[in-house]
Amino acid sequence: MIQITFLGTVSGIPSKDRNHPAIALEYFGEEKDTLLFDCGEGTQKQLMQSNISFMKINKIFITHWHADHFSGLIPLIQTMSLEKRKSKLKIFGPEAEKFVSDILDLGYFGLRFPVEAINVPFEGNKPMLIDETPEYQILSIPVLHTVPAVAYCFQEKPKWKIDTKKLRELGLRSGSWLKKLKKFGKVEYKGREVKIEDVANLRPGLKVVYSGDTKPCDNILEISKNADLLIHDGTFLEEEEGKAHADVKQAARIAKEANVKQLILTHISRRYTDAKELEEEAKKIFPNSKVAFDFMQIRLKQVI
Amino acid sequence: MIQITFLGTVSGIPSKDRNHPAIALEYFGEEKDTLLFDCGEGTQKQLMQSNISFMKINKIFITHWHADHFSGLIPLIQTMSLEKRKSKLKIFGPEAEKFVSDILDLGYFGLRFPVEAINVPFEGNKPMLIDETPEYQILSIPVLHTVPAVAYCFQEKPKWKIDTKKLRELGLRSGSWLKKLKKFGKVEYKGREVKIEDVANLRPGLKVVYSGDTKPCDNILEISKNADLLIHDGTFLEEEEGKAHADVKQAARIAKEANVKQLILTHISRRYTDAKELEEEAKKIFPNSKVAFDFMQIRLKQVI
Repeated sequence: MIQITFLGTVSGIPSKDRNHPAIALEYFGEEKDTLLFDCGEGTQKQLMQSNISFMKINKIFITHWHADHFSGLIPLIQTMSLEKRKSKLKIFGPEAEKFVSDILDLGYFGLRFPVEAINVPFEGNKPMLIDETPEYQILSIPVLHTVPAVAYCFQEKPKWKIDTKKLRELGLRSGSWLKKLKKFGKVEYKGREVKIEDVANLRPGLKVVYSGDTKPCDNILEISKNADLLIHDGTFLEEEEGKAHADVKQAARIAKEANVKQLILTHISRRYTDAKELEEEAKKIFPNSKVAFDFMQIRLKQVI
Repeated sequence: MIQITFLGTVSGIPSKDRNHPAIALEYFGEEKDTLLFDCGEGTQKQLMQSNISFMKINKIFITHWHADHFSGLIPLIQTMSLEKRKSKLKIFGPEAEKFVSDILDLGYFGLRFPVEAINVPFEGNKPMLIDETPEYQILSIPVLHTVPAVAYCFQEKPKWKIDTKKLRELGLRSGSWLKKLKKFGKVEYKGREVKIEDVANLRPGLKVVYSGDTKPCDNILEISKNADLLIHDGTFLEEEEGKAHADVKQAARIAKEANVKQLILTHISRRYTDAKELEEEAKKIFPNSKVAFDFMQIRLKQVI
């Protein structure tokens, strides 16, 4: 299961109701994992208000280095340090090595835990694998903004799901041996070899894509294909010349073309105090569209 | 008249109720002026919620370069830029030139207005004049923290206040000529020379001191003498070894010895969810003590 919390949903200038961009993705797999995508000003307070522990965050993915997407990093790292964090924090982003190093040199930190910066490619047109665990992969792809910027994809790996009907047909019983079977693919059980495919079906993993700031582009279409959820820049109602953002109709067209299951628009300009109009416009093109608001939470579960 | 708004009142780690340090001082003199002392994370949103325009802020005074005191600067400067600010912003602080330059190099700013950094001395034991207008002076003095740190003093200049009794005694009438008299010290009025001291009394200016983070020290006592308001670090109830902060009793003793009119304790550790105990302890030593809370506002007016 994945729980996504929108910690900030505004574009460049915050409003009373909307904070600068940040999204927490909690993955409830064999291991619980909390990932953070972007980290605008006030993210640590938004995390506190959402009851998400910032000490559990081990990976932060920055889409680009505009202050509204990263300036919460500095006080967040200071708080982690004051809270006596020991474990490593990884920060991914285009040019992350340069900017994370600049951040750690800013002011007097007295950092007490290791911070590793990982550069993410910001040129090319194929999704790149940038992080992997036994349960999921993180991919990135460059997008179209005024500065080097990327989109990220959380791709859960396919998982074997035990089929009780198949078990019964083979005269087998549920039990802790199935855990071993999932891990090793085959086991000896009561004198006979059982293969995972005999008793289980392969369930596809969940896929979540976050565009960061971007104009509509082929790369975002490429990385979004068949996603369970696309979180896309929907700054404006109508395209604005000279602005490197998408409007809600452009985002909806990408959602439709990429055949995603659900679209959530974020990075909303503060001029829209009521987001209904944006949502309705998007829905005309892609019915399963929503406009994010601060503290909005959604859960994704594979139902197959 | 001076209006002070506490935008953030917590120490290193924010809580749900208390934001990182920042204090807005609005001076309603001949010219209205809005000054900001420290600029922790979230300051721009706290300003919005207080209905104080951040576009009106022309001077920011940073006490020291720990992230909780400065990290709101980065998104605040970005917002000022996005709002098409043209006028210069001055940022004062110990080592301000270095750190402001680092901040402006961080990420992609596209700054559209001039930012001037002014180094404030962080060694010595006398108040130093660091800024002056026709109506007030700003002084600073080094204080005792783990890193270079200063306290600031807002000192309104004495003002001539027309004494209607004196006017009457001289057979003179109120009128716009008195403005000229205040400006030039003497004027020709109906064929005779009138000097300001003939018809007015010199009213002392208001004095406000902000300690920033500090242990109790002689310098803070020196700069606080006879202040109308001392805003002092009151992080703890009891002194904590190894911590470069004051407890509320130490702050109250300074207020008493410096003969200030009012003490407001700030930079409160998040462990004190109810600040009453702190306030009571301080009041035992200095009765006119208060503990600040976020959005607390106080007005100072010279009554003499």
